[in-house]
Amino acid sequence: MSKEITARAEDYAQWYNDLVLKSDLAEYSAVRGCMVIKPYGFALWENMRDALDKMFKDTGHVNAYFPLFIPKSFLSKEAAHVEGFAKECAVVTHYRLKNNPDGKGVVVDPEAKLEEELIIRPTSETIIWNTYKDWVQSYRDLPLLINQWANVVRWEMRTRLFLRTAEFLWQEGHTAHATRDEAIEETEKMLGVYTRFVEDFMALPVIQGLKTESERFAGAEETYCIETLMQDGKALQAGTSHFLGQNFAKAFDVTFSNKENKLEYVWATSWGVSTRLVGALLMAHSDDDGLILPPKIAPFQVVIVPIFKGEEQKKMIDAKVEAITNALMAKGIRVKYDNNENTRPGWKFAEYEMKGVPVRIAIGARDLENNVVEIARRDTKEKKSVSVDGLTDYIENLLTEIQQSMFAKAKAFQQSHITPVNSWQEFEKTLDEKGGFVAAHWDGTAETEAAIKEKTKATIRCIPLNNKQEEGKCILTGKPSKERVYFARAY
Amino acid sequence: MSKEITARAEDYAQWYNDLVLKSDLAEYSAVRGCMVIKPYGFALWENMRDALDKMFKDTGHVNAYFPLFIPKSFLSKEAAHVEGFAKECAVVTHYRLKNNPDGKGVVVDPEAKLEEELIIRPTSETIIWNTYKDWVQSYRDLPLLINQWANVVRWEMRTRLFLRTAEFLWQEGHTAHATRDEAIEETEKMLGVYTRFVEDFMALPVIQGLKTESERFAGAEETYCIETLMQDGKALQAGTSHFLGQNFAKAFDVTFSNKENKLEYVWATSWGVSTRLVGALLMAHSDDDGLILPPKIAPFQVVIVPIFKGEEQKKMIDAKVEAITNALMAKGIRVKYDNNENTRPGWKFAEYEMKGVPVRIAIGARDLENNVVEIARRDTKEKKSVSVDGLTDYIENLLTEIQQSMFAKAKAFQQSHITPVNSWQEFEKTLDEKGGFVAAHWDGTAETEAAIKEKTKATIRCIPLNNKQEEGKCILTGKPSKERVYFARAY
Repeated sequence: MSKEITARAEDYAQWYNDLVLKSDLAEYSAVRGCMVIKPYGFALWENMRDALDKMFKDTGHVNAYFPLFIPKSFLSKEAAHVEGFAKECAVVTHYRLKNNPDGKGVVVDPEAKLEEELIIRPTSETIIWNTYKDWVQSYRDLPLLINQWANVVRWEMRTRLFLRTAEFLWQEGHTAHATRDEAIEETEKMLGVYTRFVEDFMALPVIQGLKTESERFAGAEETYCIETLMQDGKALQAGTSHFLGQNFAKAFDVTFSNKENKLEYVWATSWGVSTRLVGALLMAHSDDDGLILPPKIAPFQVVIVPIFKGEEQKKMIDAKVEAITNALMAKGIRVKYDNNENTRPGWKFAEYEMKGVPVRIAIGARDLENNVVEIARRDTKEKKSVSVDGLTDYIENLLTEIQQSMFAKAKAFQQSHITPVNSWQEFEKTLDEKGGFVAAHWDGTAETEAAIKEKTKATIRCIPLNNKQEEGKCILTGKPSKERVYFARAY
Repeated sequence: MSKEITARAEDYAQWYNDLVLKSDLAEYSAVRGCMVIKPYGFALWENMRDALDKMFKDTGHVNAYFPLFIPKSFLSKEAAHVEGFAKECAVVTHYRLKNNPDGKGVVVDPEAKLEEELIIRPTSETIIWNTYKDWVQSYRDLPLLINQWANVVRWEMRTRLFLRTAEFLWQEGHTAHATRDEAIEETEKMLGVYTRFVEDFMALPVIQGLKTESERFAGAEETYCIETLMQDGKALQAGTSHFLGQNFAKAFDVTFSNKENKLEYVWATSWGVSTRLVGALLMAHSDDDGLILPPKIAPFQVVIVPIFKGEEQKKMIDAKVEAITNALMAKGIRVKYDNNENTRPGWKFAEYEMKGVPVRIAIGARDLENNVVEIARRDTKEKKSVSVDGLTDYIENLLTEIQQSMFAKAKAFQQSHITPVNSWQEFEKTLDEKGGFVAAHWDGTAETEAAIKEKTKATIRCIPLNNKQEEGKCILTGKPSKERVYFARAY
């Protein structure tokens, strides 16, 4: 097959790259570090986006749109924030080109220099809180529960399709509240929304937790996260929800008069997920034949491939398939009929395996006679002959079963890759030989965290929510510890 | 009322600005020329976007996403294109900031200068055709029918909310075809999609036509457009669809082997509409009390305002409204119940008039007794007492009627503002005293077109499609002409 991809066992990184390219999801563009999201990849992202958008709206949020540009001075207003983002941003310095005096092409017009440089947003806290200043006067104006779908730019030096690109698509929620408790409640609520989305739609189990101080968002008082596990045993942060305290309100002077008519600073949260989720989805579920997509977000849930000789057979199959397709579509099932005569059934089988379509229906002349079709599951590769009578119900149930079975498989993998260890030797050995989350005691200092990262490349992915409290000793320093935290090597 | 806006008759430009600000659609941001689209404005845009997106998909198009950045050299590859866009673009020259040596804030790091500057896309033909080069080898790879929803930047010096902003949101379709005829067919098909959208959803009649050479898109062989008419008699271009010939294929060397296995350049189209449509919508339909939104795209189609004294009445009304709301929502009607006790009914009436909600239902204690509600249409201000029995059907029909009636009103206005003139004197008088489209003979030269624009600020909005052919004399030069073209002053 021309479309063969590198096996996971051979070279996991190359497998991932092949997967993205050969399934036609995305490719690198002519612009360093930026990708083109191809139609198949974008259809997948649209399904993810639409599901999330509905969940945001169902929890009382509305969408808005803020400028792409952030005045340079805004970034500096919150001290931690600028430290986190200034190092990797695209800077607009001019607003005009002119013809090159030497006659070739165009050059930047030096006369058109901006008085203050503009940064392409790496995240929008600063421009949004500068705006909220005018929107909030009284407690009656709160809460603001606003989300934005947008492109952002972070000038990463090492990029990988979907996982880390200079420009990426995401959503960023920015909410404003009258009280600390309400803001924390919102932060946790959105962590719950992300958890439900990733688990129920992407079929990917998560660990909910808190980041350590070193790993927090630049400007946050607390960063909540969901961590997922890839097939190579590395962790991937799938989403974060930040409690920002009053940091941005103070930086941009956003106050409100409370019910007692006293001025107070507003409390903030922000939360985001990005096209990085697509990378997580691929690396968690796919195999050496290509993608395996969960039915709930797959661009096509069912593909139908006819197998025929001659026009007469084709016509009869076309007619039968039309009825099947209409019945499936009436149930809201996304179905594609591929009767393109330029490619053969064997090529199509491989192609839709590569693209991860959850269910394939093949139908030939003999099947017609017997009133059956052949059904193949992408996830298990099981094939089965099924009667056309009751086919729609069968498919509907099968899609549900595939969704659940993909989650169960990923959950079992995750559960078998959370390993408690009690010594440094065990810690290193587990990271090197097994991977996954290593549950270990830690003395709670940033120094030890940094030393462990330096020695092993493992970071503290999170301190799990509702973590069991137990006495123990830090695996590196032997100092006392009250709980285990989850370490892993990560994307 | 604190929310009063300037009357149209007094100052049309100020009326428009007040309208946008006081109906909470958008506002200027801290970044020159960029706007913040507020939640109510964004909900309106989302409804427009979703309707268009469905029409694109129903006509066989798919979405994708291309980079925000365009390498400077790409712009120069198509000669007319760079002339059109180089003068007003945001240029990224650096990719990092660093702490200011003087300790205050951050400065651009001179070490982080890009080898080649990147332009924020003003439109994406160049980056997309550079990508298509790798996607097209054979006639079997054609057509490519791709659309992108994106933000773009054009560094306009004079900006107005929605109508002309430095950054705006839009969609841009970019299709690739094997033949000239097929590309022209696509160009015309998309003009038809825009026409149906603007007329059926926005209730705004259009004139379909071709742009003159001077007004064409930079790089197009032919620009099709739809022109709309605002209440002040000025025209507004609502959408364009370009036949690009082989210009971009030649600039980016995009060829395919045809059925005879010969290499040919690919044929191209591009087409777009933007958040500018929101401006057109507002200026065409609104009045001195605020917005008037067509039901099909209004964020809320119905608002319900309770009128009560005391908790007991409120409870009874709440219960009744719940039943009404559920019945309306079951029919897919977007309804808001505003029982906020911080504001009085009179304030709410004015507020929802300002926001252009098509239908207002008021319900008081006496209405409850009589099993009726008071219904007010935003467009005609008519009020009527209507029985609660059969209310859902009544509302459903009323929304349809409002949609049609708004279109009919705008259509009558448009029809009465297409004025054929046969002399220069008449031409100037009509422009100054009546406005609208002036149908006049023109000698077909760019010189005369420019002279007329210089003298009157009127431009040729379009040469109508299926234009009646008739002998005549150019209103300025007296030279022979074969058809009338539509002049107007325009936004």
